[in-house]
Amino acid sequence: MKMFQPYLWRRCSIRSPALGRMLSRYAMNGGDGPHSYAQNSSYQKGFVDVAKPIIEEEISRKLDIKHLSSTFRIADFGCSTGHNSCAAMQIITEAIRRRFEIEGLISQIPNFYVFFNDKVTNDFNTLFNSLPRERLYGAAGVPGSFHGRRLPKAILDFAYSSCSLHWLSEVPKAVLDNTSPAWNQGKIHYAGARREVCEEYVNQFAKDMESFLDSRAEELVPGGLMALLVPAVPATWDPNSAYTMTTENYLFGTCFMDMAKTDENHQNKRLLLQGRFSKAKVDSFNIPVYFPIPQQFKAIIERNDKYTIERMEVLDNPGKRNLIGPKDRAAYLRAVSEEMLIDHFGSEIIEELFDRYTKKLEASPLFSDPDCDKSIIMFVLLQRKPESYCSAS
Amino acid sequence: MKMFQPYLWRRCSIRSPALGRMLSRYAMNGGDGPHSYAQNSSYQKGFVDVAKPIIEEEISRKLDIKHLSSTFRIADFGCSTGHNSCAAMQIITEAIRRRFEIEGLISQIPNFYVFFNDKVTNDFNTLFNSLPRERLYGAAGVPGSFHGRRLPKAILDFAYSSCSLHWLSEVPKAVLDNTSPAWNQGKIHYAGARREVCEEYVNQFAKDMESFLDSRAEELVPGGLMALLVPAVPATWDPNSAYTMTTENYLFGTCFMDMAKTDENHQNKRLLLQGRFSKAKVDSFNIPVYFPIPQQFKAIIERNDKYTIERMEVLDNPGKRNLIGPKDRAAYLRAVSEEMLIDHFGSEIIEELFDRYTKKLEASPLFSDPDCDKSIIMFVLLQRKPESYCSAS
Repeated sequence: MKMFQPYLWRRCSIRSPALGRMLSRYAMNGGDGPHSYAQNSSYQKGFVDVAKPIIEEEISRKLDIKHLSSTFRIADFGCSTGHNSCAAMQIITEAIRRRFEIEGLISQIPNFYVFFNDKVTNDFNTLFNSLPRERLYGAAGVPGSFHGRRLPKAILDFAYSSCSLHWLSEVPKAVLDNTSPAWNQGKIHYAGARREVCEEYVNQFAKDMESFLDSRAEELVPGGLMALLVPAVPATWDPNSAYTMTTENYLFGTCFMDMAKTDENHQNKRLLLQGRFSKAKVDSFNIPVYFPIPQQFKAIIERNDKYTIERMEVLDNPGKRNLIGPKDRAAYLRAVSEEMLIDHFGSEIIEELFDRYTKKLEASPLFSDPDCDKSIIMFVLLQRKPESYCSAS
Repeated sequence: MKMFQPYLWRRCSIRSPALGRMLSRYAMNGGDGPHSYAQNSSYQKGFVDVAKPIIEEEISRKLDIKHLSSTFRIADFGCSTGHNSCAAMQIITEAIRRRFEIEGLISQIPNFYVFFNDKVTNDFNTLFNSLPRERLYGAAGVPGSFHGRRLPKAILDFAYSSCSLHWLSEVPKAVLDNTSPAWNQGKIHYAGARREVCEEYVNQFAKDMESFLDSRAEELVPGGLMALLVPAVPATWDPNSAYTMTTENYLFGTCFMDMAKTDENHQNKRLLLQGRFSKAKVDSFNIPVYFPIPQQFKAIIERNDKYTIERMEVLDNPGKRNLIGPKDRAAYLRAVSEEMLIDHFGSEIIEELFDRYTKKLEASPLFSDPDCDKSIIMFVLLQRKPESYCSAS
């Protein structure tokens, strides 16, 4: 009989009691109201659009349709409330269907089944109610962090993740520790921060990517494909003529310091009543996202020995042109960060915070021109090696 | 290459446009507030409690642990927001684990994975947030009616459903049709209704059970087990000394007629303002639940040729003693029917309706004594036959 390794499934809690540190459990804004992710994710839709022809081409070239089982199983890791996710699932299932049609094997088109994964706090009710009324696939929701195992072993034929892997499993501990050289005082992100802070972030990203790749290696069948689309930034850009998602995070961070009271001993009670907070409150908060540069991303992917790299390239995000101006940009950031901000700072700061952020975006000549956005997308298509070819599995 | 039959996954809509009839898409009350299913399902908890020793015994006797794969896959059909469902999943996984321990095969205990199924409108967010923090199983939510296929082919080792199969897929068309001999005028249920109405209900139940059994036969592995617990009633009981769930539905139905205005031509505007409704409004509403008698249930199970019957018996529901009095009984009915009632009658009638119902329960000497509740539970354990033994699969 085969030896099994039982897996203890855990739910993520905000703070891991064993580790005493902040874990990232926040999801995108739920529902379909004015601040929802559903209404404010046209930027992320660009990822789906630019990947469409590439995924279609790769499914047509790489998918071994001779050895499929009766149900083709797909998972989307980081599906949120489903608008962009369903569009992506439509592209994948249609491409496979077309492949069978072209090869004259219509009677052998498999059933499709999609596992939609996101954090436990994700609004799965909205996701389930947004699924297309008639669709080619059966659907399940899978709650929990994609940095760990989420599905039975060898259940997936195709794994997909778009605009999600920049979310870290936790804020690097050292950046919140005032005794560490990586303490990120006065900032909420590594953008514009010291080298030590950036190193903590990139190390966390590398560790999280490894956990993700290892978890999916368990869940994919040998030969299974995985398409990843990760928001990234170029190694350098000219801050006078261009910006990226890190520039935005830096600018957003300055709003917090503007709102923090300037002197603990001379509290201005009027300002406090407006919902402001201490500098220490800012120091104890960092946003758990990292945007890799291409070289970093490539190195992480190449280090993992459970997959072959079938295709890897740098893409532009056409979704930036879906954000008409600073208001759209601020709304997009609000939809992805509001839950986390409310938990740390309280809901009373939100309106003022995003008003200030919008004004800062408006005051810059750069942000009104989407072509100044030099953020990029790292695309990679991986194939799960047969287990015997992996050094550890 | 094997011939596949592609399956078109559909979402249930309230009204099927093709058929023009009411489909049952309502779920139990979500959240964990005072009227939630989570707070008002101690009656249904009795199903889990009474089945515990039987399921443990059958897993110890029947489960072929020599031929399990690395992940043992379970599904609960009709999980609602999870309180009772998680208790049942705990019983099943613990029983399997113990079986391996007893046989000295601790190192071979499989992983567990649970698919929680309920309607699309079910509150899966509450379910996911109620999952035990540390548990033996991975979890997914599967939205959609269990009267159709919900999972990939041959994915399940164990299917389970408790206190759910009495919910019909739709109200029998004829009982709402004033040209039919089965028109159920002035009533909201078959309880106390004419023979023709009862026949429509039992036919719908038989049809739905068949759809359920056929769908699960696709999803279960050959040899896979299925434990079903279905609320039922004895063939007869003395209405002077006992009651059942059908008695309750009859009594509940009389509240609607009390609230309906008596004469369409002499509308009492004061009463209308109180949120009352026409008799026709009552006539166009029926509750889609059926409680079989043992003979009916047995006949349906025996008719299906995709399973062997490993055990079938009539059980008492200890959960009736969890309902302390009429208020609890009314609260339990409200938690399972409120969504459906609001959709048809509007939310403004709910308080008055359940006040009236509580008073009627209080006025009866029977309902204060749980031992007068003669409702029963049909338990059946089925085993999926190998495909070659089935006449059609």
